[in-house]
Amino acid sequence: MGSFSLEILAPVIAALGLLYSLVFWRAVKAAPDGTPAMQKVAHAISIGARAFIRRQYKTIAILTVVVALALVVAYGLTGAPGEGWKKGFEVGGSFLLGSLLSGIAGVVSMVVATKSNLKTASASKNGLNAALTMALRSGTVSAIVITSLSLLGISSLYLFYRFALNVPAAMIPALIIGYGFGASFVALFAQLGGGIYTKAADVGADLVGKIEAGIPEDDPRNPAVVADLVGDNVGDCAGRGADLFESISAENIGAMVLGVALFPRFGLKGILFPLILRAFGLVATIIGVYTVKAKQGEAPMKAMVRGYWITTGLTTFVLFVCSALMLGSIPSATVGDLFLSFFSLQNSAPWFFFAGVTGILTSVAFVYITDYYTGKDFRPVQAIANASTTGHATNIISGTAIGMESTGLSVLTVCAALFASYWFGTQSGLPAGGLYGTAVATMGMLAMVGFVLAMDMFGPITDNAGGIVEMSKAPEDMRLVTDELDATGNTTKALTKGYAVGSAALAAFLLFSAFLEEAKISVVDLAKVPVFVGAFLGAMVVFFFTSLTIRAVGKAASVIVEEVRKQFRENKGIMDGTSEPDYAAAVDIATKSALKEMILPGIVAVAAPIIVGVVFRAEAVAGFLMVGTITGVVLAAYLNNAGGAWDNAKKFIETGHLGGKKSPAHQAAVTGDTVGDPFKDTAGPSLHVLIKLFSTLTLALAALFI
Amino acid sequence: MGSFSLEILAPVIAALGLLYSLVFWRAVKAAPDGTPAMQKVAHAISIGARAFIRRQYKTIAILTVVVALALVVAYGLTGAPGEGWKKGFEVGGSFLLGSLLSGIAGVVSMVVATKSNLKTASASKNGLNAALTMALRSGTVSAIVITSLSLLGISSLYLFYRFALNVPAAMIPALIIGYGFGASFVALFAQLGGGIYTKAADVGADLVGKIEAGIPEDDPRNPAVVADLVGDNVGDCAGRGADLFESISAENIGAMVLGVALFPRFGLKGILFPLILRAFGLVATIIGVYTVKAKQGEAPMKAMVRGYWITTGLTTFVLFVCSALMLGSIPSATVGDLFLSFFSLQNSAPWFFFAGVTGILTSVAFVYITDYYTGKDFRPVQAIANASTTGHATNIISGTAIGMESTGLSVLTVCAALFASYWFGTQSGLPAGGLYGTAVATMGMLAMVGFVLAMDMFGPITDNAGGIVEMSKAPEDMRLVTDELDATGNTTKALTKGYAVGSAALAAFLLFSAFLEEAKISVVDLAKVPVFVGAFLGAMVVFFFTSLTIRAVGKAASVIVEEVRKQFRENKGIMDGTSEPDYAAAVDIATKSALKEMILPGIVAVAAPIIVGVVFRAEAVAGFLMVGTITGVVLAAYLNNAGGAWDNAKKFIETGHLGGKKSPAHQAAVTGDTVGDPFKDTAGPSLHVLIKLFSTLTLALAALFI
Repeated sequence: MGSFSLEILAPVIAALGLLYSLVFWRAVKAAPDGTPAMQKVAHAISIGARAFIRRQYKTIAILTVVVALALVVAYGLTGAPGEGWKKGFEVGGSFLLGSLLSGIAGVVSMVVATKSNLKTASASKNGLNAALTMALRSGTVSAIVITSLSLLGISSLYLFYRFALNVPAAMIPALIIGYGFGASFVALFAQLGGGIYTKAADVGADLVGKIEAGIPEDDPRNPAVVADLVGDNVGDCAGRGADLFESISAENIGAMVLGVALFPRFGLKGILFPLILRAFGLVATIIGVYTVKAKQGEAPMKAMVRGYWITTGLTTFVLFVCSALMLGSIPSATVGDLFLSFFSLQNSAPWFFFAGVTGILTSVAFVYITDYYTGKDFRPVQAIANASTTGHATNIISGTAIGMESTGLSVLTVCAALFASYWFGTQSGLPAGGLYGTAVATMGMLAMVGFVLAMDMFGPITDNAGGIVEMSKAPEDMRLVTDELDATGNTTKALTKGYAVGSAALAAFLLFSAFLEEAKISVVDLAKVPVFVGAFLGAMVVFFFTSLTIRAVGKAASVIVEEVRKQFRENKGIMDGTSEPDYAAAVDIATKSALKEMILPGIVAVAAPIIVGVVFRAEAVAGFLMVGTITGVVLAAYLNNAGGAWDNAKKFIETGHLGGKKSPAHQAAVTGDTVGDPFKDTAGPSLHVLIKLFSTLTLALAALFI
Repeated sequence: MGSFSLEILAPVIAALGLLYSLVFWRAVKAAPDGTPAMQKVAHAISIGARAFIRRQYKTIAILTVVVALALVVAYGLTGAPGEGWKKGFEVGGSFLLGSLLSGIAGVVSMVVATKSNLKTASASKNGLNAALTMALRSGTVSAIVITSLSLLGISSLYLFYRFALNVPAAMIPALIIGYGFGASFVALFAQLGGGIYTKAADVGADLVGKIEAGIPEDDPRNPAVVADLVGDNVGDCAGRGADLFESISAENIGAMVLGVALFPRFGLKGILFPLILRAFGLVATIIGVYTVKAKQGEAPMKAMVRGYWITTGLTTFVLFVCSALMLGSIPSATVGDLFLSFFSLQNSAPWFFFAGVTGILTSVAFVYITDYYTGKDFRPVQAIANASTTGHATNIISGTAIGMESTGLSVLTVCAALFASYWFGTQSGLPAGGLYGTAVATMGMLAMVGFVLAMDMFGPITDNAGGIVEMSKAPEDMRLVTDELDATGNTTKALTKGYAVGSAALAAFLLFSAFLEEAKISVVDLAKVPVFVGAFLGAMVVFFFTSLTIRAVGKAASVIVEEVRKQFRENKGIMDGTSEPDYAAAVDIATKSALKEMILPGIVAVAAPIIVGVVFRAEAVAGFLMVGTITGVVLAAYLNNAGGAWDNAKKFIETGHLGGKKSPAHQAAVTGDTVGDPFKDTAGPSLHVLIKLFSTLTLALAALFI
């Protein structure tokens, strides 16, 4: 294969992927829209979501431009004459491109979700399989768009530098690191704003609706119910979309930076390997999604897991082919020879393949660990449910203990993966092979991100569909279908979070190494006072940031509670059902307060590593980055798993155990669920973004800290 | 001053201190014992506490002997022939001595507390000041014994090696590192067992008593009430006593190890400085305690704070004298010259003095930070109280956010102290001066540990006195006195925890450096995979250990709940007051389950660093140690401050705010308080011990990891 065809392969597949998403999208759009009552609800949700996204991205756009200018000026003033400004424009420009594409990914996710919730609600009258297919295919649209866009952006930047500016290939990865920072920056605010909005609306609606007024969830009399449904779209869809967009981007860039170290041996192949593996992983995802079909009487989760395994198998095959063709150290003339030489242990290809398989296995392990800690059929959730019988406090104590316990297996898995992939890499016999082994493991883990993302989007779409069915007073059997899908969606959402934490942890080491490469340091010596202080501050900032996000939810929720109480007080007709509540006012107030509350944690996240870097320099910021990441991963695993377990402990009781609904145990379990909401849907996901932001930010600013 | 008189000074003062504790003790013993009803209650508590301590220390003794033998064998088999066994006996022997003295410290604390609770209860009929003085003087007995014993043990070991075995002074610190490990080992199990017992009994008594049966706290009809009161003595007194015994020991040894680096310049003085400063700090503490007297109508806390400030002033003076005489780099013939040379900036003495003052200021800062985050008069506690009005869940969410927020100021303070003291140390111009600066700061912070310890012991003693007054149905005005003292005790207990975390964090860096010295490595490079994996595991083990301790409380509490329910069920006369519950059965069952539950977390704590060290060697274990410590400090600050804030949010509401007692807000606040109990009294304090155990264990085993 010629060098140019290799360079053009990933962008072509990415562009084809984008086009192919239209196939899914047209199928979704062609589906029927349901009853006028449903359309009315969906319309209100759509308006609210669009209003939020518009205002949110306006704020983000301003912040982005400010940061881009600051980047240009900072590099311009500190760099060598001429050089500095050039570097500034390179970093600032790729920062803007990353931001822009991340923004588009978020908007597309939101638009798709607010259209397909109605389609799924409507499909639920044709039974489980129809609704399942509709929701998953809709999720796939966003998944493909996000994956393709990230890939297209990076590979276009690569082509631009290579052919428009004639930069040698090995120098390009260092020029596009601003792209990852841009993606992280937008993801941070998208996830923060969306995450705060969605949980503030949820908690606010529950506090007044379920607890004070005693009306059921999604009841149309609750003025905050539309805001709650909007939250799923802007938090879980747009927020998570931006989150995984930056994961893909950051990992691609990090791997390319490390690939440069292998340039003398592999040439272009080492640098382009991550992009090409990702491109074919996208193809595997599309095939995998087509295989998800629930058989007669089968639980939808089973069909989903089957599709996941098929995707995993295909991804492993893709990994095998790509490793054999691109990462071999035995020169071969023909493709057939390359395949044959794979089976020689003197070749580096099989070792990198094993490293990649380690990554794929890690992804599987995280799915099972998360399932164990948050699934209804295992000890942890049942222990929390049992503890609920002795009251609110024991429910919380038990959930806290379970969440912290779950960090054990999670971290052991990451450490084992890191160690194994590093070892496999060193067996390749290449210099820097160990590091590249961990990079390939990360690529393996993230290769099937498309399928995971589709499963993740499935959650809020079905959740919304359920809300639309309930609010439009559709027949009971449709509600049963959406309820079952909603339960499946809760599981897939929990699994995705496990996957996101795991991949963030694995990718972290890769990004650290890329940072050290950029900052031109080879040692991060914790025994030095500034490095130790940096590390200490890293751990602290993670806790402090989490505190801010949790508090933000509390503050925004209390504003919504006030609004709902006011509407109930001023319009007595709402509770009788004779008068409609003012949904738009609740949506508006939720939007304003969520956007206000996202600013402070966002600033802390961006400012902290910069301050440490400027004051204590590169090695200290590496300590900050590494220990901040370690703490962030552990804390996020705790928050996600505790939240998921509380949620399902409540559901376990609601299915008739330990006294069932309305029992004292159920009340205690509701408390746990409410506490878990900001843990698992605001703080935890924000931490994923935070730790990747630390990496991409320090990577982009490395030159300033030297 | 001759070398011998310098060497003998600390042990002589320590021995005198031990004797002087008898002066306080005789005054306590001579005080009246109160009514027969009171004596009966106190007797039951005393029997329960003794039974627990006897069984607990039997278990600990077995474990200690096993570990001591393992140490001897491990060193014997891995060391050079002859050398290894010798080293094994040195480490094993000092391990046993440290364990033994720590055990004695714990037993003394318990005996004093179980005697003085009755004396304080009885003194409360003579008014606030009489009871205050009694409780504080009793606490001082334990404080002096603990401080003196630790000092006496180390300085005796020093004298033994120096004069019985003729070892050169500079080689001795490395030989006595087993002592710190022994102290930590016993402290771990003392704190775990006591901490689990006290909170299991507390939560168990509250769950059935207050919530199910609706009887007030400390009501004699509750079968678990004596177990609850026993818990204060075995958890807060014996456990915290062992905890601070090891703090003092570990820090003394660490500072002596670092002092060796300054041996060429300071000779013996550098090594003995920590012991002598500690000895004079003890004298300052005794004087400080005498000054605590509440003026007419004054809040007892104010008197306590005044005593604290006087002790701080005296300690600063002691530090000045010791620095001037011992740490000067300008040779002077007479004492007068030494003092004069202090004021020369070419001299190293003033810089080390500043470093020590940094430590003292850090201690003050921690007291104020803790007070802000857990005091009723400030935003954090009031925010939690306000959040309680919207229910259980918002109370928990708010407390979680506040606890995490509090890590910010705590860590900033430690980092600032570390940085400043290091900088002062480097200004001394001596090689290794920076590290010694952080060591002197740690010594400064821990110099007034005696006074802090006395304040800490004050808490459980007054808590117990209140219980005795309540259970013996003594007059209302006595109850008012003990209630006020109890509130003061809650504050002092919270402050001590802040102090303990702060000193653990500051001491940590000193102990790391001592470890690196012992392990003969100079770099801890986080960019290496094994070191990073070690660091990751360190952070995880801290969370996992915390999970185990919290779960242990839950399990032990549920056993107690069952027992209390059984007694209520089988003996209907208890609730009518016609028949007495079987207190001893509840005590017995609490003892058994607490001792059973302390084993697993204890084994995890000891095994984890050893496994990392054996598998990944010294540099990785250093990563484990450092990041484990960082995470432990941050997590402990969170747990302690969240727990303290929840406790006082409840008290804030109970004093009539937001609806007062029995209001819905109060119920929510009770939930927060119950959740906070195992956080602040089991998990948090166990973490203090854990992180110091990591340090002393790795220090003692360093030679095995090279």
